[in-house]
Amino acid sequence: MNPDITRERQNATFDVEKLTYILDGGPEKTKRRRQIEELVFSDPDFNEDDPNFLSRSERYDQAVRKSAQMVLKLREYGIADPEEIYHYKSCVHPGRPSPLDLHLAMFLPTLLNQASPAQMDRFFMPAWNLEIIGTYAQTEIGHGTHLRGLETTATYDPATQEFVLNSPTVSSIKWWPGGLGKTSNHAIVLAQLHSLGNCHGLHAFIVPIRDTKTHEPLPGIVVGDIGPKFGFNEVDNGFLKLENVRIPRENMMMKYSKVEPDGTYVKPPSSKLTYGTMVFVRSLIVGESARTLSKSCTIAIRYSAVRHQSEIRPGEPEPQILDYQTQQYKLFPLLSMAYAFTFVGQYMTEIYHRISEDISQGDFSQLPELHALSAGLKAFTTWETNAAIEVCRMSCGGHGYSRSSALPDIYVEFTPTCTYEGENTVMMLQTARYLVKSYRQAEKGQQLSGIVSYLNESQNRRVQPQAVASRRPLVDINDLSSLVQVYQQRAATLVEMAAKSIQQELQHRKSQEDAWNNSAIDLVRASDAHCHYVVVKVFNDKLKGVGDTAIHSVLSTLALLYAMHGITKNSGDFLQAGLVNVPQVLQISVRIKELLSQLRPNVVALVDAFDIHDKKLNSVLGRYDGNVYENMFEWARRSPLNATEVHESFQKYLKPLRSKL
Amino acid sequence: MNPDITRERQNATFDVEKLTYILDGGPEKTKRRRQIEELVFSDPDFNEDDPNFLSRSERYDQAVRKSAQMVLKLREYGIADPEEIYHYKSCVHPGRPSPLDLHLAMFLPTLLNQASPAQMDRFFMPAWNLEIIGTYAQTEIGHGTHLRGLETTATYDPATQEFVLNSPTVSSIKWWPGGLGKTSNHAIVLAQLHSLGNCHGLHAFIVPIRDTKTHEPLPGIVVGDIGPKFGFNEVDNGFLKLENVRIPRENMMMKYSKVEPDGTYVKPPSSKLTYGTMVFVRSLIVGESARTLSKSCTIAIRYSAVRHQSEIRPGEPEPQILDYQTQQYKLFPLLSMAYAFTFVGQYMTEIYHRISEDISQGDFSQLPELHALSAGLKAFTTWETNAAIEVCRMSCGGHGYSRSSALPDIYVEFTPTCTYEGENTVMMLQTARYLVKSYRQAEKGQQLSGIVSYLNESQNRRVQPQAVASRRPLVDINDLSSLVQVYQQRAATLVEMAAKSIQQELQHRKSQEDAWNNSAIDLVRASDAHCHYVVVKVFNDKLKGVGDTAIHSVLSTLALLYAMHGITKNSGDFLQAGLVNVPQVLQISVRIKELLSQLRPNVVALVDAFDIHDKKLNSVLGRYDGNVYENMFEWARRSPLNATEVHESFQKYLKPLRSKL
Repeated sequence: MNPDITRERQNATFDVEKLTYILDGGPEKTKRRRQIEELVFSDPDFNEDDPNFLSRSERYDQAVRKSAQMVLKLREYGIADPEEIYHYKSCVHPGRPSPLDLHLAMFLPTLLNQASPAQMDRFFMPAWNLEIIGTYAQTEIGHGTHLRGLETTATYDPATQEFVLNSPTVSSIKWWPGGLGKTSNHAIVLAQLHSLGNCHGLHAFIVPIRDTKTHEPLPGIVVGDIGPKFGFNEVDNGFLKLENVRIPRENMMMKYSKVEPDGTYVKPPSSKLTYGTMVFVRSLIVGESARTLSKSCTIAIRYSAVRHQSEIRPGEPEPQILDYQTQQYKLFPLLSMAYAFTFVGQYMTEIYHRISEDISQGDFSQLPELHALSAGLKAFTTWETNAAIEVCRMSCGGHGYSRSSALPDIYVEFTPTCTYEGENTVMMLQTARYLVKSYRQAEKGQQLSGIVSYLNESQNRRVQPQAVASRRPLVDINDLSSLVQVYQQRAATLVEMAAKSIQQELQHRKSQEDAWNNSAIDLVRASDAHCHYVVVKVFNDKLKGVGDTAIHSVLSTLALLYAMHGITKNSGDFLQAGLVNVPQVLQISVRIKELLSQLRPNVVALVDAFDIHDKKLNSVLGRYDGNVYENMFEWARRSPLNATEVHESFQKYLKPLRSKL
Repeated sequence: MNPDITRERQNATFDVEKLTYILDGGPEKTKRRRQIEELVFSDPDFNEDDPNFLSRSERYDQAVRKSAQMVLKLREYGIADPEEIYHYKSCVHPGRPSPLDLHLAMFLPTLLNQASPAQMDRFFMPAWNLEIIGTYAQTEIGHGTHLRGLETTATYDPATQEFVLNSPTVSSIKWWPGGLGKTSNHAIVLAQLHSLGNCHGLHAFIVPIRDTKTHEPLPGIVVGDIGPKFGFNEVDNGFLKLENVRIPRENMMMKYSKVEPDGTYVKPPSSKLTYGTMVFVRSLIVGESARTLSKSCTIAIRYSAVRHQSEIRPGEPEPQILDYQTQQYKLFPLLSMAYAFTFVGQYMTEIYHRISEDISQGDFSQLPELHALSAGLKAFTTWETNAAIEVCRMSCGGHGYSRSSALPDIYVEFTPTCTYEGENTVMMLQTARYLVKSYRQAEKGQQLSGIVSYLNESQNRRVQPQAVASRRPLVDINDLSSLVQVYQQRAATLVEMAAKSIQQELQHRKSQEDAWNNSAIDLVRASDAHCHYVVVKVFNDKLKGVGDTAIHSVLSTLALLYAMHGITKNSGDFLQAGLVNVPQVLQISVRIKELLSQLRPNVVALVDAFDIHDKKLNSVLGRYDGNVYENMFEWARRSPLNATEVHESFQKYLKPLRSKL
């Protein structure tokens, strides 16, 4: 054990284990999590070569091997709880998606939700037993977010009672689905349904794409891997070009809508269930942001505790990097953000479950709010985390660039969350739509409830920026509840400004749509402020439930740092709205420095509390024992380029060159 | 040619070719640049496989082959001007560093600068003819920026007239030097010199590390590749562990300091020459920021012109992404930044050459200012560019993640500039040291000249934040010169605040060093504001020299956007210092939207003016002809995972799995 990191742990003022329980949601959860980790990490069937030393094909091969093992073991151990499966999987493929992810997380659930009973009989057990391996093919090379823009066609032929599927243009080639390139033999294909000369919009079809015995592509199917990406090296994201591919009528997903044998189209009863799935996936991503940020902070803070560099006072030994104010200012606000996002993740899960109950009882009233919240928080937390990983990486000096630090991989595996499951700017605009709608309702005198209820009050204030700016600010900057109010009022101000921008555009005879587009900058800003408010609020609410004094104290410091740091970073907004004044902004800067010093003795313990197993962290810089350099040296020596002392390029190019010069 | 992009070009209001001349520094420069591009891109000896489809060892192999060809060709064509060599190299290895970079850019120049005449006779010609291939080994696994912390020792043994070199600890292993792992047979090693029982600090030694015939490592040498990194896949960054390695006394670099045969140490005459090299390299990095940002903007803007998505008005065809205000707000400020940094790069080169003249005439007076400026601007431009590349990448939707977009590679190859040649936070603090020193001089009544002369005035103002906040702002927000003033005064305010923070810490009985560390956040902020001011000022100055009316007009719009966007992003600073008021901040937001619309018809032409050859851009999204999707499909089909229809993992794992379930 490195003596610096031991000393850090001795200086902590709270019980790390107890904080871990809070983060996990209780001691039983912590215990079970550790059991699952032990199951995977002690299992020789999951031993692996460092993917950084493998070619892409070898990485894919290794991932398929481990995924196959995983399916066997999960059934052997009878692990069936989705949360436990998720955790088991995250140990088998630490930090990396795998080729079977879409089969397990999209193909099977889509069958469960959208297949008719007859289809369930035909497809489910073969899929459960991996005779059928499927993926979900929606996105096309030229079309993403906008479903109406998708071009793939499924035309019904009553003569043979078949659908004929086609990719009519290059831009309509299916592109990106995970597991499509090499792994799957079936795909659920989203296509525009044509029957009897009419187009009935997007529907889902089960399309066999490879022979289940030989795995060769079937006639009319052009399928393959879309090539290397930023991350996701284990996954065969694929393309699929359909050339007059015929499938039986019964392969259309028929639970809700139907095409009769004669070609008659039967509409689905309106359903909000898919809405619920989107909300669920986006809530998961918020949790994923928290975990990823926790990992990154663990690596950067532990390494900063053992790394010595330069000098603060001449003649003295090189200090720990953690003693530099600039390093503290880079990392401690991110640590506070990791805690904030963890609590927001818990909050999202809770309200998702609560609202799911409501929905199962036919009460959809809370769904729009939850939908808006999950969209905005997905965007807010992934953008913030995305930038934060890179700050963590760059805070590690040169070694942050080494694959052995794990930080490059953490970044490339995480950054797609900003784009998939709803592109972030689009997400922010969806949230904004809800906020503006709520604002308009309040304007008309309707009483809002839930998270947007603060928009009621703004109606009483009638914000005039100049007047507000000269008003006496009401904030006690050292009181977290008071800061929550300030964030709330900032959000209210910015929602109002966005709504007024739309109003002004309309007055200039713009159409509703152009007015919206011409206010999009303001709308995104309003959503961002709303989400920021929610995060600060949730953190503050969480504190109320923490009984342990020592833990309450350190979490309060973190929460205060999170809130104050957000104010300095966005001080223009707060000053503009007259919510704080100039002396207060200066006081907050001074207070932040004090909070950094106050947190300094606890930061290693605070990342320890995340309790991320060394094998999951997989970082020489972030090792629990702090023995960084010897392990980095050992890792480097195993690099494939060191397999021989002399690389063949010497004999091939460098030696012959001499005689030519 | 894609019709959308053709229409964009037809709509441009200025002559693209003329703007290219301004960016290149004149029509002759443009012509010569294109000649060199033609030399490389039409040369079959430089044909290459897409590195994205190769293993690391194959990438290294290909890079060595091309580097060897390049050395031959440069001599064949007699290309000797450093700028032309730089450009030729950037075509041979587009966007990628190469294994011979350190030999050419560090080993040979270090010989020229620091070798004695006798050493030049022994080493220069063999190195010129690549019999000796060298690198520059300074950084150690546990030590970076702080040179006094380096641990490698070179102990003189008078009995044999040799130096004995050692890596006494794990943390002293040389780490990171490019070309050290597999390519070099010599290294210039920086080590603490010990002679006759005294340590004389860091000196440079030429150490043979591999046999020049067999290329095998020599006795006592443990050398190899440090393993895969974020980017730099073509380069064998290496480690070097020295175990009692003996080299002749004559292998110490002896131009300035010496060790006599009896072990007597002779001090160097003080020299500021190495100072000049650092400044030069950092100036180059500023230019590299501009080029990288130009590339990224070219890709994102061209793709946004041909990509259609979603809808603004229902029922109408999907609009070009470029018509969304949010997309304009993401990309156009970055385009303005690319222009700003290009002009700052030109400015740095100019003043570097001017001051080099002074230095050669023994006048060192301008060097501290240039040093401070190059350090700060290196940090400012690389941080901004680093974040901007990712905004460009994410503005391309899913396809930004594909390696075929080139954006992932642009990011990973560029991001190290934030750390190497002076870690950015350290750089900002160096600039701050100069600013605070200048401020103190002004405080004492000394008249400052040069770029910091604005600090003279702040002495007359005696800033009191509250008083200032209520002062009537003096800015005409539509006048760029007026905005330059505002940026200048923001910098002055923040320098003053940082200086006062140090003062206050000292009054609390802190030592000078602790006062500095406890003010580091403020110091970085002050440097950042200073650099931002310089960029805005240089852009404004550049406009004065542009005669062509149409070009002047579009560049003025860009400059105004750059300045205004910076104010909204940092509005807290400007409000706090009372430099703008709340209504003005709101006016600026409105004005920015107008500028976005105004620039819209010219943005494709503005990126065309960077005139980046398709083979240099190497991006399917950024192609000049806009034919994105068909080329992406073609690229994907060449991916190694598509070499066979059925991947072997099917037979190995997936098929056997079925029988077990």
